[in-house]
Amino acid sequence: MKNTSVTEHSFRPSLAPLFDPRAIAIYGASSDPTKIGGRPLDFLKKSGFDGPLYPINPKSPEIQGLPAYPSIAALPGPADLAIVAVPAPAVVAALEDCAAHGVRGAVVLSAGFAEVGGAGAVWQAEISALAARSGMRVVGPNCMGLINVRRRLLGTFTPSAAGFGLVPGSISLVSQSGAFGGYCLSLIRQRQLGLNYWITTGNQSDVDFADCVAFFAEDEETRVIAGYLEAATDKDRLFRALALARARGKRVVVLKVGRSEAGAQATASHTASLAGSDAVYEGVFQQFGVFRARSIDEFFDIAYAASSSAPLPRGKRLGVLTVSGGVGALMADVAEEAGLDMPPMPEEAQQRLKTLVPFCGPRNPVDMTAQLVNDLTLFGRNFEIMLAEGGYDLIVAFLSSVGQVKDLSVILLDQLKAILQRHPDRTIITVMLATPEVHRLFNEAGAMLFDEPTRAIRAAGALVHFGQSFGLAEQEDAPPPLPAAALPPPRQEVNEIEAKAVLASAGIPVVREHLAADEEAAARLAGEIGYPVVLKIASPDIAHKSEIGGVIVGLRDEARLREGFNALITRARQAAPRARLEGVVVAQMAGPGVETILGVVRDPVFGAVVMFGLGGIFVEVFKDVAFRAAPFGVATARAMIAETRGRALLEGVRGQPPADIEALAQAMAALSVYAARHADAIESIDINPLLVLPRGQGVLALDALIVPRAAGQA
Amino acid sequence: MKNTSVTEHSFRPSLAPLFDPRAIAIYGASSDPTKIGGRPLDFLKKSGFDGPLYPINPKSPEIQGLPAYPSIAALPGPADLAIVAVPAPAVVAALEDCAAHGVRGAVVLSAGFAEVGGAGAVWQAEISALAARSGMRVVGPNCMGLINVRRRLLGTFTPSAAGFGLVPGSISLVSQSGAFGGYCLSLIRQRQLGLNYWITTGNQSDVDFADCVAFFAEDEETRVIAGYLEAATDKDRLFRALALARARGKRVVVLKVGRSEAGAQATASHTASLAGSDAVYEGVFQQFGVFRARSIDEFFDIAYAASSSAPLPRGKRLGVLTVSGGVGALMADVAEEAGLDMPPMPEEAQQRLKTLVPFCGPRNPVDMTAQLVNDLTLFGRNFEIMLAEGGYDLIVAFLSSVGQVKDLSVILLDQLKAILQRHPDRTIITVMLATPEVHRLFNEAGAMLFDEPTRAIRAAGALVHFGQSFGLAEQEDAPPPLPAAALPPPRQEVNEIEAKAVLASAGIPVVREHLAADEEAAARLAGEIGYPVVLKIASPDIAHKSEIGGVIVGLRDEARLREGFNALITRARQAAPRARLEGVVVAQMAGPGVETILGVVRDPVFGAVVMFGLGGIFVEVFKDVAFRAAPFGVATARAMIAETRGRALLEGVRGQPPADIEALAQAMAALSVYAARHADAIESIDINPLLVLPRGQGVLALDALIVPRAAGQA
Repeated sequence: MKNTSVTEHSFRPSLAPLFDPRAIAIYGASSDPTKIGGRPLDFLKKSGFDGPLYPINPKSPEIQGLPAYPSIAALPGPADLAIVAVPAPAVVAALEDCAAHGVRGAVVLSAGFAEVGGAGAVWQAEISALAARSGMRVVGPNCMGLINVRRRLLGTFTPSAAGFGLVPGSISLVSQSGAFGGYCLSLIRQRQLGLNYWITTGNQSDVDFADCVAFFAEDEETRVIAGYLEAATDKDRLFRALALARARGKRVVVLKVGRSEAGAQATASHTASLAGSDAVYEGVFQQFGVFRARSIDEFFDIAYAASSSAPLPRGKRLGVLTVSGGVGALMADVAEEAGLDMPPMPEEAQQRLKTLVPFCGPRNPVDMTAQLVNDLTLFGRNFEIMLAEGGYDLIVAFLSSVGQVKDLSVILLDQLKAILQRHPDRTIITVMLATPEVHRLFNEAGAMLFDEPTRAIRAAGALVHFGQSFGLAEQEDAPPPLPAAALPPPRQEVNEIEAKAVLASAGIPVVREHLAADEEAAARLAGEIGYPVVLKIASPDIAHKSEIGGVIVGLRDEARLREGFNALITRARQAAPRARLEGVVVAQMAGPGVETILGVVRDPVFGAVVMFGLGGIFVEVFKDVAFRAAPFGVATARAMIAETRGRALLEGVRGQPPADIEALAQAMAALSVYAARHADAIESIDINPLLVLPRGQGVLALDALIVPRAAGQA
Repeated sequence: MKNTSVTEHSFRPSLAPLFDPRAIAIYGASSDPTKIGGRPLDFLKKSGFDGPLYPINPKSPEIQGLPAYPSIAALPGPADLAIVAVPAPAVVAALEDCAAHGVRGAVVLSAGFAEVGGAGAVWQAEISALAARSGMRVVGPNCMGLINVRRRLLGTFTPSAAGFGLVPGSISLVSQSGAFGGYCLSLIRQRQLGLNYWITTGNQSDVDFADCVAFFAEDEETRVIAGYLEAATDKDRLFRALALARARGKRVVVLKVGRSEAGAQATASHTASLAGSDAVYEGVFQQFGVFRARSIDEFFDIAYAASSSAPLPRGKRLGVLTVSGGVGALMADVAEEAGLDMPPMPEEAQQRLKTLVPFCGPRNPVDMTAQLVNDLTLFGRNFEIMLAEGGYDLIVAFLSSVGQVKDLSVILLDQLKAILQRHPDRTIITVMLATPEVHRLFNEAGAMLFDEPTRAIRAAGALVHFGQSFGLAEQEDAPPPLPAAALPPPRQEVNEIEAKAVLASAGIPVVREHLAADEEAAARLAGEIGYPVVLKIASPDIAHKSEIGGVIVGLRDEARLREGFNALITRARQAAPRARLEGVVVAQMAGPGVETILGVVRDPVFGAVVMFGLGGIFVEVFKDVAFRAAPFGVATARAMIAETRGRALLEGVRGQPPADIEALAQAMAALSVYAARHADAIESIDINPLLVLPRGQGVLALDALIVPRAAGQA
């Protein structure tokens, strides 16, 4: 793993000239403000961007009232940023002109490149090469451009930017899709979310999604990085960017499409990029503490909550204060789904709450009932008791429609401000239907305000997620060292004994077993291993032994062993007359344990990926598996185990003892290190089953398959 | 099952006088329009209710400018409806006065009844008795009242009704919670949803949730019944109401809280009613085609979509038309979750779409790209090809922010109207950010319009759900007859042989087995049944046989059988010296099959309830079970099986043959009939495992437990 340290991210020039230029040149500037070449200039003029604007158009001395220039060379001063809107065939020449004259960043709005193929693909390759050669950063082509709200820089032609209408804030957004980015911009305006940077990356000839994440990660104004992702192009860049964001405490929320087959196909046809398996993305997001939103509402709900200056929750203890018992119950239902705990108020505090409102629900949710309308001070007094005596990390308060009356809202807000001041370490969210003015007042006071209670709870869950991810990040999770004696992967398919020998050398405990070529050898080996033993037919041509009755378990003595040996040979000959028989494997009979599956697969984007699941139907019926890109440490392995619902079996159900989860996590980390080291030589590894013994007794790989990867395979 | 026929619902007087009175008397009318007794009068005066209003207040000749009367007897004309806002101790007398003077419906807003206990509970019981005796229907006490939008009748004191602001439409809403009902009213106004009736039922002394559903079901103006439910009080009333709603083609969407433990506790403390198990409610909703919403947004999204006059989808084939490939992919992801299919466009039609926009995504989603902005006719032309050649049952079209520009929206709406006219059998939903005016224009044209694409897809899924439920309802699903020879349930706990004999008599296939008191009898019975056999210890004191090694399977001959018999007796004596041993059960060794669990439990609300799940970890780890109230027919049983994710095992995984799902469904229906017939005598039945053999070979109950219910048990 090279270049994964978070300090090495700046190996390419920064995106600063793109977002923070002294002056902007517009290549292909048009006098018609509705055209792609005219709209950015129109927007920039009207928005009040504070630097010089240089239209470039050899055919006209003046564009939209500004002096125009025939080329970059003719400009009266330096332009750090060029917006390029000339037809596709002229783009490369324009960019060469830019690079030759001090332009440090270019945004190519023009379409007609890799997305259409042919000459377009060639031009795009030339753009990539030019960017690499010159150091000038290029956004696009085929993109919607970028925005820097604080400088009122509208370097885009999306109609959603017309009229500006943006509020400066701490959210920076990157979208791979231009259309999606434009839609987001409309939503940001509609919701009046505080925005810092906005960018769409289009065909990503140079600047990609990961570059933008990395740039935002180092930006002081940015607290939230919101990303729309279709497919990552470079694993290392993405990992570096996400690691940097986590190290800087940025809250990353992504909308990644392609969970369904139809969705994945739509993405593939849309971006023509090789999308990695969606389940692997899920693992990557977990690995870096990224929150994956499932809808556009959720994407922005979480961006909004995470952009608040309020502290992240220290834990997941949620208190709910409500004026409606019914809504309180609904919030409790959703809180459970969101992974939040709702411990009850202490008994004594419940009595105190009852002195405020005799018929309140004092447990948690705390239902102060419609009495609030008669006595607004109940809000602050209930709140104070909950915070002081309930010990909640965060509180969500539902106040129905009070926010539609400004006078009442202001009184509540004053109480809330005092509460926030007394309890600066708690996270507080208010929910009520409110007028836009009341929304603004709350936001200005740093008080989060939602309209819909279940959405507020889900956002609260996301804040807890961020708090916990940043906590986890502080732990060490270094991959373990690869054992010095680790064998290289086989160059062709090998039998399970050799596969297990390789895995054993890599630090994965395997069952004791040996190949016996004949009956006598089997008897001798069984004596050495100790009865009872298991016998398995050994043949490179028989992959699924149990289907031909090729496994006999629980052989208790030598007589039964000899009988078993001959039975296996006979069965194999009958079932697969042409199979090469190497003999029979004599194996230690492993004690009772939980069967799991541990494997390595190749992902087109993320390379060697480790998969873990409970055995059998868990994987096949419930798809109950967790993925992570290799390598990783024991903490990540533990998180993978915790993600599966089948973990209940490992924790011990039906009076079974808990299994050795720690040994399992160590085996997973060891496998991940081996898989990463030999990523180019391994197509897949399948340890099935990996038996997890009771706590303290370790794990045992009972069967294994290693499929090598042919040299030079793409 | 008595009174379940949908024609028998009207056994109690209708709610019509409540919602459609000629005149309204207000008991306890106050001159202060901010008080509970003053607000309804204030609202009714301002809203323009079209009938006479009679304030009743013995202390004043005039209230809020209207002549006031000392009592009902003094009124100048008949009042069908009385709104009662006098203090709790005076309510019963007021209601008696009403009932004695021709009032046919009363709404009691006053609080201080069962929710506070003591005298309040006594008064409430008196109200219930009075309602039953007089035939006058009573809403409340402790409720927020009711609304009839078309008559501008605001019989409520919720501040959410101030200023009216309601649009007549086809949604009727019933809420058990007043606070929740008030919040809903604010949302209905904010969203400008078309409302017909609104009612909160409070303490439900007489009119309950089910009564309102039944009344709405027979109301011609109502297309959607939206209900907020905490706990049902009377199973038969609820079932009758839901059956009636389905028979009348009403679309029922409910928000039922209490899924989580904290939520259920909050509900319990809130309504002090015995809530049934949430999983059973889930089954009841499935049974009657009710859509259960998971959030308030979803509740109203679905109410909105279902209130449209558009046809319900004939099937679940969804086409997505989009201007953003990314949003299209997101919609496809959510469509899969919502159970919708997204078949691709036919190849030839894809070519035709490409002639419209060369770089479009023609598959499905159909991505017409941002080209739409340049040529608005692309909308109608793409749409027409999708409808004519894609064969989709419904289409959701995403148009980004176009709805923010009225001129463009009107052009699209005109195209849409033409499409709707040419394809009146298809369901069409448009999604775009839109101004309130554009929303209104679309709604007036009967064109569904959503803001957020994933919410539109979920609403589409709900419409498909309704279409399929109404289709199912037309099928016969009569419970099978109870066999004439069915034995009564045992009066005390019995051994598994007797339990299985009872179940066999009820039509559930059981394994062949007999109790052997001694070794000789065991040998004789095994010979009759045929080897191999299974031996199980028989003792009323040993519930979990396998834990003491009390089961031996696969005994192949008489010698092994005799050895096994003695081994079991020895093990039982050692493990449970004081247990009464009845002998050993000799049983047929059942062939390979899928182990399932079938049971009956008592639910406090729904009585005898049948539970089904796959065996073992499926139930314990994944809670993968389906419930239905007994009795039901084979179609419902099939639906239960289809609901479990473990059904994949029954359909055949890993090359296993498909199991006999039909025989399973028949056994489930038979058990449900038996359980319903003997509901008062059965605490629980547990058939575990019920082995489902390969298709055509039936099912076999291998073990069973019947726990009788003591006579007179509450």
